[in-house]
Amino acid sequence: MIYNRIALIGLGLIAGSIGLAVRKRGLAGETTGSASTAKSREIARNRGLVDHVCKTNAEAVAGADLVILCVPVGVMDAVAAEIAPHLAEGATVTDVGSVKRAVIDAVAPHMPGYVEFVPGHPIAGTENSGPDAGFAALFENRWFLMTPTESTSEAAVARLQDFWEGMGALVARMDPDHHDRVLAVTSHVPHLIAYTMVGVADDLRRVTNQEVVNFSAAGFRDFTRIAASDPTMWRDVFLNNRQATLEILGRFTEEIFALQRAIRRGDGEHLFNHFSRTRNIRRGIIDAGQDTAEPNFGRSAGGL
Amino acid sequence: MIYNRIALIGLGLIAGSIGLAVRKRGLAGETTGSASTAKSREIARNRGLVDHVCKTNAEAVAGADLVILCVPVGVMDAVAAEIAPHLAEGATVTDVGSVKRAVIDAVAPHMPGYVEFVPGHPIAGTENSGPDAGFAALFENRWFLMTPTESTSEAAVARLQDFWEGMGALVARMDPDHHDRVLAVTSHVPHLIAYTMVGVADDLRRVTNQEVVNFSAAGFRDFTRIAASDPTMWRDVFLNNRQATLEILGRFTEEIFALQRAIRRGDGEHLFNHFSRTRNIRRGIIDAGQDTAEPNFGRSAGGL
Repeated sequence: MIYNRIALIGLGLIAGSIGLAVRKRGLAGETTGSASTAKSREIARNRGLVDHVCKTNAEAVAGADLVILCVPVGVMDAVAAEIAPHLAEGATVTDVGSVKRAVIDAVAPHMPGYVEFVPGHPIAGTENSGPDAGFAALFENRWFLMTPTESTSEAAVARLQDFWEGMGALVARMDPDHHDRVLAVTSHVPHLIAYTMVGVADDLRRVTNQEVVNFSAAGFRDFTRIAASDPTMWRDVFLNNRQATLEILGRFTEEIFALQRAIRRGDGEHLFNHFSRTRNIRRGIIDAGQDTAEPNFGRSAGGL
Repeated sequence: MIYNRIALIGLGLIAGSIGLAVRKRGLAGETTGSASTAKSREIARNRGLVDHVCKTNAEAVAGADLVILCVPVGVMDAVAAEIAPHLAEGATVTDVGSVKRAVIDAVAPHMPGYVEFVPGHPIAGTENSGPDAGFAALFENRWFLMTPTESTSEAAVARLQDFWEGMGALVARMDPDHHDRVLAVTSHVPHLIAYTMVGVADDLRRVTNQEVVNFSAAGFRDFTRIAASDPTMWRDVFLNNRQATLEILGRFTEEIFALQRAIRRGDGEHLFNHFSRTRNIRRGIIDAGQDTAEPNFGRSAGGL
C-alpha cells in the first residue's frame, strides 16, 4: 500500500486501468473516482473500477493523498480550478495527459502551496476509450514519464515513482518541453497521419468503401486502429502541442516530397536506400519489449 | 487435387506459404520450386516448402500445369522470357505481384499461344520475407484478386479460383487498372507513409533513437511493422504503380495540409470532425473479418 486514498478524476480507459491495477496489486487503502455522466458512473460501479464512485470531483478528492487527473487536456484547467479548494494538505496531484507543458500551465497556477504537483504521462493505451475499456495489465512493461518542476519535493516524486512501478511500469523523468517533442514523434504525428490516410480512403469516389475494407490487410488496416482513437482527446493534444507537432509534421512532409519525387523520376536507388534503413528501429522496439516479434502483430496465426 | 504439378518461381514468403498450404490441403500431385540463391534453396529443402527444389526456373516449370511467379515485380519480364520456351502446353501461368498492369505488360508478350496467363494478387502478407517466413495459414480468409484479360479462357480462370479457394482464400475478379488504384489506397501509399514516418524518427537530432524505441507504444510502433517490409519488393511496387500512387499521395498531402492549417489556427472543430468520421472504417474491417477486434491488435493482453 503506497497511498491511503487515491482519487481518479475522469473514469475512462486510463483511470479504469489504474483503478483495476491498484485493486489487483493492493497499492492503496481505498480508491474513489468521479465521472461527468451518469452512464459512466454506472459502468464504473458495475465493473468495480474504484471503491467509491462519486458524483462530483470535489467529493472524490476529499481526503485523498493522491489525486490523478485522467481527463482530456482541454479541461485540465477547469478541473484543477474546481478541485483546488477541496484538496487535502500534503496531497500529491498528478495527471496522465499526453502533453505536459500545456498541462503544467493549466494546472500549476491553481494548486495550493500545501499540495505537491507531479505532472506525468503513461505511454500506454489502446484505440478504445471510456469506462468499459480499461484493464489491469495496461501499464505492465510500459513507460511512465514524470516531468516534475523545480518546486516539487523529491519525496513526492519518489513516492509516485514507487506507485507506478507497483503497477508494473518503467519510470523515467524528463523535461516537459522535451517530452512534448518526443511524443510528437512517437505518438502525435503518427496519429495525425493515420487519421489523414483513413480520411482519404473514406473520401474517394473511384474506390468504394467496401473495397477499402476488403483489401485492407495489405497495410491499410494497421492505420485504422489508431485512427479509431478518441476524437476529443486527440483534438486537445493537437491544440496543446502545436509547435512540436508542426515541427515534426514539417519534417515529415519534406521527406514525403523527396520520396514522391523519386517515384516520379523513377529513382529506384533512392527508394531502395530509404526502405532499407527503416528495419533497425523495429528490431530495437522488439528487443526493448515494446512490441511483439510475431508477424502481423500475431494476428495472422490461425488465419484470423 | 486441382493441379498435377505446381511450380513456384521464387521461394520467399508467398511461395513458401503456397507450398505449405498446397501440401497441407492436398491441392497438387507434386510441387517444384526454384530460387536464385543456394541458401534459399537449402532453407526451402529443410522446411519442405516444395517436393522438388530446382536450381533453375526452366527445370522447375517443366511439365507443370500451374506456374506461379512469386518474384519481385521488377524481374517479372526477365523471368517470363526465361521460362517461356520450357512451359508445358496447356499450362496456366499466374503471379502474385502487388501491381497488375505492369506485370501484364511485362509477362503477357512472352507467353506462347498454348499457355493461359491469369494475373493475380493475394491480399495477404507479413512484414517478414524470404524462405523462412511462409506459413500455411497465410491466405485463410484473405482475398485473392484475379485480373484476367479477354484472351484468358474461362476454364483456366475457374480452375485457378478453385485452387485459391482450396487454400482458404476469398476470390474476386477485377480490372487491372482498377486493382492498381485500389491497392494504391489500401497498401502502397500506407507503406510509403510508414516508411517516411519511420525514416523521419530515425533522423532526428533532438530526439534520440532510444527515446523513439522506448516510447513507441504510443502509436509509432504500429508504423514500424510495415516499414520493416522487403525493400526490393517495395521499390518495384512504386516504380511500377507510379500513376496511382502519385494520385493518392496527392490526395493525402492535400488533406494533411488542411489538418496542419487547422492545428496552426487552433480550429478544434475541424480536427474533431475529421477525427470523428474515421472510426466507421475500422468497424467495417473488423466486421468483414479482415482484422481483430482485440485492443492493440491483441498484443496488450498480458502486458506484452
